[in-house]
Amino acid sequence: MQAITDGDTYIDSLRGRKMKVYLMGELIENYVDHPMIRPSINAVAETYDLAVREPELASVESKLTGRRINRFLHIVESPDDLVMQNKMQRKLGQNTGTCFQRCVGMDALNALHSTTYEIDEKHGTTYHKKLLDFIKMIQGENAVIGGAMSDPKGDRSKGPSEQVDPDLYTHIVAKDDKGIYVSGAKAHQTGCINSHWIIIMPTMRLTEDDRDWAVVGAIPADAEGLTYIYGRQSCDTRSMEEGDIDDGNAKFSGQEAMIILDKVFVPWEHIFMNGEYEFASMLVERFTCYHRRSYVCKTGVGDVLIGAAGTIADYNGVPKVSHIREKMIEMTHLNETIYAAGIASSYQAQKMKSGVYLNDDMLAQVCKHNVTKFPYEIARLTQDIAGGLMVTLPSEKDFRNPETGPLLKKYLVGRKGVDVENRMRILRLIENMTMGRNAVGYLTESMHGAGSPQAQRIQIQRQMQLGYKMNLAKNLAGITGDNNEPSEDASYFRRVFKIEKRPPPEE
Amino acid sequence: MQAITDGDTYIDSLRGRKMKVYLMGELIENYVDHPMIRPSINAVAETYDLAVREPELASVESKLTGRRINRFLHIVESPDDLVMQNKMQRKLGQNTGTCFQRCVGMDALNALHSTTYEIDEKHGTTYHKKLLDFIKMIQGENAVIGGAMSDPKGDRSKGPSEQVDPDLYTHIVAKDDKGIYVSGAKAHQTGCINSHWIIIMPTMRLTEDDRDWAVVGAIPADAEGLTYIYGRQSCDTRSMEEGDIDDGNAKFSGQEAMIILDKVFVPWEHIFMNGEYEFASMLVERFTCYHRRSYVCKTGVGDVLIGAAGTIADYNGVPKVSHIREKMIEMTHLNETIYAAGIASSYQAQKMKSGVYLNDDMLAQVCKHNVTKFPYEIARLTQDIAGGLMVTLPSEKDFRNPETGPLLKKYLVGRKGVDVENRMRILRLIENMTMGRNAVGYLTESMHGAGSPQAQRIQIQRQMQLGYKMNLAKNLAGITGDNNEPSEDASYFRRVFKIEKRPPPEE
Amino acid sequence: MQAITDGDTYIDSLRGRKMKVYLMGELIENYVDHPMIRPSINAVAETYDLAVREPELASVESKLTGRRINRFLHIVESPDDLVMQNKMQRKLGQNTGTCFQRCVGMDALNALHSTTYEIDEKHGTTYHKKLLDFIKMIQGENAVIGGAMSDPKGDRSKGPSEQVDPDLYTHIVAKDDKGIYVSGAKAHQTGCINSHWIIIMPTMRLTEDDRDWAVVGAIPADAEGLTYIYGRQSCDTRSMEEGDIDDGNAKFSGQEAMIILDKVFVPWEHIFMNGEYEFASMLVERFTCYHRRSYVCKTGVGDVLIGAAGTIADYNGVPKVSHIREKMIEMTHLNETIYAAGIASSYQAQKMKSGVYLNDDMLAQVCKHNVTKFPYEIARLTQDIAGGLMVTLPSEKDFRNPETGPLLKKYLVGRKGVDVENRMRILRLIENMTMGRNAVGYLTESMHGAGSPQAQRIQIQRQMQLGYKMNLAKNLAGITGDNNEPSEDASYFRRVFKIEKRPPPEE
Amino acid sequence: MQAITDGDTYIDSLRGRKMKVYLMGELIENYVDHPMIRPSINAVAETYDLAVREPELASVESKLTGRRINRFLHIVESPDDLVMQNKMQRKLGQNTGTCFQRCVGMDALNALHSTTYEIDEKHGTTYHKKLLDFIKMIQGENAVIGGAMSDPKGDRSKGPSEQVDPDLYTHIVAKDDKGIYVSGAKAHQTGCINSHWIIIMPTMRLTEDDRDWAVVGAIPADAEGLTYIYGRQSCDTRSMEEGDIDDGNAKFSGQEAMIILDKVFVPWEHIFMNGEYEFASMLVERFTCYHRRSYVCKTGVGDVLIGAAGTIADYNGVPKVSHIREKMIEMTHLNETIYAAGIASSYQAQKMKSGVYLNDDMLAQVCKHNVTKFPYEIARLTQDIAGGLMVTLPSEKDFRNPETGPLLKKYLVGRKGVDVENRMRILRLIENMTMGRNAVGYLTESMHGAGSPQAQRIQIQRQMQLGYKMNLAKNLAGITGDNNEPSEDASYFRRVFKIEKRPPPEE
Repeated sequence: MQAITDGDTYIDSLRGRKMKVYLMGELIENYVDHPMIRPSINAVAETYDLAVREPELASVESKLTGRRINRFLHIVESPDDLVMQNKMQRKLGQNTGTCFQRCVGMDALNALHSTTYEIDEKHGTTYHKKLLDFIKMIQGENAVIGGAMSDPKGDRSKGPSEQVDPDLYTHIVAKDDKGIYVSGAKAHQTGCINSHWIIIMPTMRLTEDDRDWAVVGAIPADAEGLTYIYGRQSCDTRSMEEGDIDDGNAKFSGQEAMIILDKVFVPWEHIFMNGEYEFASMLVERFTCYHRRSYVCKTGVGDVLIGAAGTIADYNGVPKVSHIREKMIEMTHLNETIYAAGIASSYQAQKMKSGVYLNDDMLAQVCKHNVTKFPYEIARLTQDIAGGLMVTLPSEKDFRNPETGPLLKKYLVGRKGVDVENRMRILRLIENMTMGRNAVGYLTESMHGAGSPQAQRIQIQRQMQLGYKMNLAKNLAGITGDNNEPSEDASYFRRVFKIEKRPPPEE
Repeated sequence: MQAITDGDTYIDSLRGRKMKVYLMGELIENYVDHPMIRPSINAVAETYDLAVREPELASVESKLTGRRINRFLHIVESPDDLVMQNKMQRKLGQNTGTCFQRCVGMDALNALHSTTYEIDEKHGTTYHKKLLDFIKMIQGENAVIGGAMSDPKGDRSKGPSEQVDPDLYTHIVAKDDKGIYVSGAKAHQTGCINSHWIIIMPTMRLTEDDRDWAVVGAIPADAEGLTYIYGRQSCDTRSMEEGDIDDGNAKFSGQEAMIILDKVFVPWEHIFMNGEYEFASMLVERFTCYHRRSYVCKTGVGDVLIGAAGTIADYNGVPKVSHIREKMIEMTHLNETIYAAGIASSYQAQKMKSGVYLNDDMLAQVCKHNVTKFPYEIARLTQDIAGGLMVTLPSEKDFRNPETGPLLKKYLVGRKGVDVENRMRILRLIENMTMGRNAVGYLTESMHGAGSPQAQRIQIQRQMQLGYKMNLAKNLAGITGDNNEPSEDASYFRRVFKIEKRPPPEE
Repeated sequence: MQAITDGDTYIDSLRGRKMKVYLMGELIENYVDHPMIRPSINAVAETYDLAVREPELASVESKLTGRRINRFLHIVESPDDLVMQNKMQRKLGQNTGTCFQRCVGMDALNALHSTTYEIDEKHGTTYHKKLLDFIKMIQGENAVIGGAMSDPKGDRSKGPSEQVDPDLYTHIVAKDDKGIYVSGAKAHQTGCINSHWIIIMPTMRLTEDDRDWAVVGAIPADAEGLTYIYGRQSCDTRSMEEGDIDDGNAKFSGQEAMIILDKVFVPWEHIFMNGEYEFASMLVERFTCYHRRSYVCKTGVGDVLIGAAGTIADYNGVPKVSHIREKMIEMTHLNETIYAAGIASSYQAQKMKSGVYLNDDMLAQVCKHNVTKFPYEIARLTQDIAGGLMVTLPSEKDFRNPETGPLLKKYLVGRKGVDVENRMRILRLIENMTMGRNAVGYLTESMHGAGSPQAQRIQIQRQMQLGYKMNLAKNLAGITGDNNEPSEDASYFRRVFKIEKRPPPEE
Repeated sequence: MQAITDGDTYIDSLRGRKMKVYLMGELIENYVDHPMIRPSINAVAETYDLAVREPELASVESKLTGRRINRFLHIVESPDDLVMQNKMQRKLGQNTGTCFQRCVGMDALNALHSTTYEIDEKHGTTYHKKLLDFIKMIQGENAVIGGAMSDPKGDRSKGPSEQVDPDLYTHIVAKDDKGIYVSGAKAHQTGCINSHWIIIMPTMRLTEDDRDWAVVGAIPADAEGLTYIYGRQSCDTRSMEEGDIDDGNAKFSGQEAMIILDKVFVPWEHIFMNGEYEFASMLVERFTCYHRRSYVCKTGVGDVLIGAAGTIADYNGVPKVSHIREKMIEMTHLNETIYAAGIASSYQAQKMKSGVYLNDDMLAQVCKHNVTKFPYEIARLTQDIAGGLMVTLPSEKDFRNPETGPLLKKYLVGRKGVDVENRMRILRLIENMTMGRNAVGYLTESMHGAGSPQAQRIQIQRQMQLGYKMNLAKNLAGITGDNNEPSEDASYFRRVFKIEKRPPPEE
């Protein structure tokens, strides 16, 4: 594959692949130009174009090869590298107003870096080297890597090997001297048809009986045996209509699909876990640690929505009314609260044995947990500011119709100097982001992506070091002889009180 | 018109009317059977069918005629009558899962009852008698009355007579011996194409210069000069697709349209205000007082969504997990908090000079203000419980496709005994109510219908009797010689501490 | 005992009783005039004085005797009677700014009315008649009845009969032909030393092994064997200091004590349950149903705090600043949301077999559950408006000191025309209600009185009729053949959709 | 003054000073050993002892002198230095459970570092050099610096020079060749009697007429003309009682006093602003930028309260109940959300012209704004977990009394193995932190310290770059020709998207 250099060459790279993609009951040949799919490809293309326009932000020099690469393919070498991911994510959220779908791969590569190292250390395997070779190759190609983790799960009270149907979790069904064959499915795949590679990973802690489900491997997105069934999204068919107003955000969207794997082949060189079930939870936890902090992207999307709220307030002629102003402030406050937790998590990182840095786990949970709430409140406040017209506005076709168009232009006029079409456009963008297509990414994905709210709460519980805190209280209350043993394995306060030594940044 | 007796005869009554209805850029002849419009007609039909099935709940004996009539056409004769409206509203919310669009007319008739009486008292006019005649007629017909209040408003910093274009508020453009002619527009009309009569009313406090805008009149929905432009709603075109799963709620929806009035004639007998500008605010305040408490309907819709959350939790196999249970409780608590404020407002009613009862204004604001927040939180919690599948689920067509259908049935299996189609159906209902078509009614209309949040806050401020409360505090703090004058005209605490005398209910 | 006619004769009625009252490590002889105790007696006295000043509100004609009695001693004969309790409670909250401690007895009598009736029905006992005789007597006396429910509980994972020490729940230790003897303790007794009678009741569901703990009886507050240990409250000793400013609310406060029972005799005629363990939960649930709605009193206290916030905003010269105004509105909205749930619960009452009315249980939970949150937010907002001076203000003694007094008067000046002492007084009242003595009643008692938050949530869960709601959702989603059995015993929606018939109130 | 080396020598250093301190109406000679004042001195002493026990955390090598100094006296030389302040603050919050009162001075010195540099740059003055000399001296002494900013303000609608009484803002009343003389007062002084130096600063933006109020100077805490009037705190006199249980936290508390300045002399070498009124707002904004992020200390106090909640849950025997666990998680989540914003603000710092670093202003506001809410919710949840006993618990004296002590020990028993005294102690600590003496620091000071909530909102508004965000939205909505000018002077996104370059930390 020729190295991709920008958004256009990226889009070209997707053409000509033979893939089984179903959408609305039909097998789609040219999914690249399909109007319902294309916006999600555009969003990924922007990750390339940003690296061209703002190389300091979205590309980085890799120690692995000494070459400048897209930041999404970088193995992080410092806390600042983690922070820079967040900054790039915020910018891409601002530029696309949706999910740009490339973070899962980035976070998976970094999680695998340390996990493969530690598997090798215990088992004498060579996964880490194979992973490094794979990373070097894709850095050369500048490829899009999709990470596939969520299995369908079936009966949630049972583990993989206990399911009536073993395929409900993706697993190895055969092996030969060239590699392995896997079957199963991966649900809720954010960005996959627009990827070049899919890395499959287990989705949860596994037991000894689950050896065949303990598999990690990289698969070309057009490998034989893969079937993609495209998920519906609110208002998705508007992109099939004439015009671009009713879309709200005609250019960008996310992508969700179910991937079915039917005896898909993975060669040995692209296998990074194979039966070491006891490392599944380590991989999942490190991946979610990176990925929950990656939800800083939603602050960039939030910036767009706050901007849309500000615009409609202006078009309605009420930007300085005190309650509007207070709501704008509140939205900003919530948005920056999310951002702060992401940055703090990235900054308070620790170096792993393999040399990669892992951001702070407690603060990653805190970041994501706020993401499961605040975007909903920002969306609610934006709907408040927008007014009811957002859900009663006639269609673009009515606006273009010679009979009704002039009536709408006459009656939908706002404050002086505001173009009615612009008013419609901004209202449609708000609809798009709060109940339409990109509400999927801004709201529901914020809820469930990288783990549902309760998953974060469980992780917070594990790390909250209650015994340590109980001792603080007992000490001040004058309680003696009843101290808690410091036996907790949680290390949060070790990170909090760690002393960092390094020079101030260069100016 | 022949008296309507049930849902079917209601639907028949809509046929054969010549109306100018535009939808998606086209003039629609048969709007009754149009798949995008029909669900909103079905919702109104249910208001008739309920009166047949549960006459005690949805019909009532009117003192005006001595006949049993649909409760939506009733002039309330006691606090209990107001409470019964709330109970009927909750039931209809439960039965339709959406806005059934008939409350605006009900609340407008009751607000006009006392307002026309008081106009007549001052001006010696005869609006009240004309109104009573009109009410008797429509009670005989069992008609649907739409209330049209929201003008387009244009530049919000200016009043009706100050606008560059006088039509931005509906107004009288001509008069003759038969009646008047009005022009303008009414926006965000919830339920209008499926109404028989439209009552136009001013939307705000008016000044002396606004006499021509101080007009109230009843107009047949198919009057000459009326043009309807149908509003778009999230996912509205799904009802045009084959199948009924992706709709979520295929049978019921709301309806929003813009009405353009071009020299529409209103005969003198159907005019209930004509230039008495100083009564515009009274009418608006009494209407919103009734109507903000009518939002108890959303607790019925909330019951459906809570039931949907309970169902998907059950289908996913996790109904007894503690955090799920807590979320179900929280949703119920929020929903009943709304209900309680509506009931309390209805119960704490006062009798007006005309004999009609008006529910408590402060508590009506409190009810509606909670409605601008709690449904959003209930929706968020439901999305939490539903899981990400709600936004990644493939289409019904994929489910019916012989290639992908079996794959979906295999992989979307939940706990044992759950039919995959049922699981899809309940997820689509949740999508419908939280980001799809009925999210318009459950969320955005809850925000803006009957007045946006700040409108309630202003009314709360007007009635909060701060001087009275400051005296309470000063008294307890031992402050003397600095008491506030009890000059406030707000009467909330007079209602709170009023002693009611009546026998207990019959058993 | 001579009938009490007003606050003064009430206070006299407390004198001369021999009671063992401990406070701060000392046995208190004259607890009536003790400065730390007296404010709690004054609060009860106000329940008498109100009945004199506003007889319609705080007294009522009882069917039992045909005489006009204090409303606190009334057996409710209609939903309106329940509503009137709430209105009286709000007024007393306004007049005292604290807990007036007389509701527990009122709610206990009403709960016992129906429970004793139903015990008799099953067991052929005569508790109901004995209760009626007791009620008639205390109505004649116009006595204060304290209800004692909370046992110390010891190890919460064990029931009464399973505790190492059987006294951890109050129980029968001996019987003879005159009556029974009980030992144990009752904790957190709000209003007891200022009561004439204490009714002891079980605190939870009991089993067959707990027969000896299934006891209800009325005991004179000065009975032999009773010991009272007075609880500390924040800032309680300020009432021992000179001056009245630093108290905040020098006249009124609540009262909390632990009661120890050491073989206290109860004659047979004052025993209303004796071993019928299976009725313990009925009694507890009915009592808490009444009592959780009684927390409407906190809206009266809230009125005082809102008034205090309004006063300090005025004294600081900022009453019209928009964010202050919004906070005043928010506080009012929260306060009225509590009130509405109480009123709706009272109104949506049902008649019990014994003839007494019981308010709606679901809405009682909703009312109390909001009480566990909103007063804290109202207090927080008041502290926001008050400014930091509330916690940095020097003492009244510094204000009276000839050296520092003039300095304070010079530097604590607010807007023109405001007396510095008045500013201090209102700040001390806010301190009193948000972190001082009456914060105990306004905040912590709001949290735990009548059951902690989780107790309400469990009751909401029991009554939320999820199966009914799931059927609503399934019906709209087009799910057939999977309906839930309507086997739930909860009857909430039966009450919601019950049709009441009665004439409108007299004017 | 001899250099202070630890807590003990610090306490010694306070002795023997002649200061006019009034408390409860009396002039206090030995304030060092006064039981109501001593806990606030102990809290400062802990800032010394921590530096001995954990030198990496609480001391630092200063470039100014090359000597290792207490971190509170350090001029920050890098973003990491700012982060380290936060970590030290959290630890001290954990160790004292209250405000340790030394941050104001730290933040004032750093704010003055850049401000004096920029005044000199414009006016050719020599304040910066004088400041550096002063800092070197106090670093040598290891002194406590109190910062005094809040003027009494009088009529808040008027500026300093417009007040009827010019002293309502501290100002210069005379000058001579040795220095200046200032009069006025400083209110709400957190930590002053236990300081060695007081730096007075203006409290707000000043105009040309306010030249005499534009004064910054360092004054010894025992300077002639200073009068201290000690503020009351909730439950403050408990420290005067026998025993230590009822105190809750007997060792540590905060300190609030009003300082009156009566012609206090400041020599020229200790004057760092003198009439340059246009720099007053710069100084205030930079100081509050540092100081609002310093409220990370409250997360350390929060750790104590969470630990207390965990302890009482354990003592009550319910630590694993699901709703308790969820509340513990929620408290932790809120606490860490505050922490994250502080760390992110410190990390996203910028270098000022003088060489000092200033933390991010937007994120500092976000940090503090969360502090005005979350501790109140943490306190509410802790009261929920604690149970009602917290406010009904008898006094320590009752516990020591031979009559009541055994009764309390018998009846206040919790789960097996829990000492009743320990249970009392932890409940008193919770009372202390949620409504008692340290609630002043944990709650009300969190509300108003470093500026009340609205002050943060105004700063957020100034920096939210709405025009930039509106352009993002317009771009995605397809709106052309209506872009906002990037004329905003806010630089938040410049900091967000700034690329930092520096090596990873040393291991």
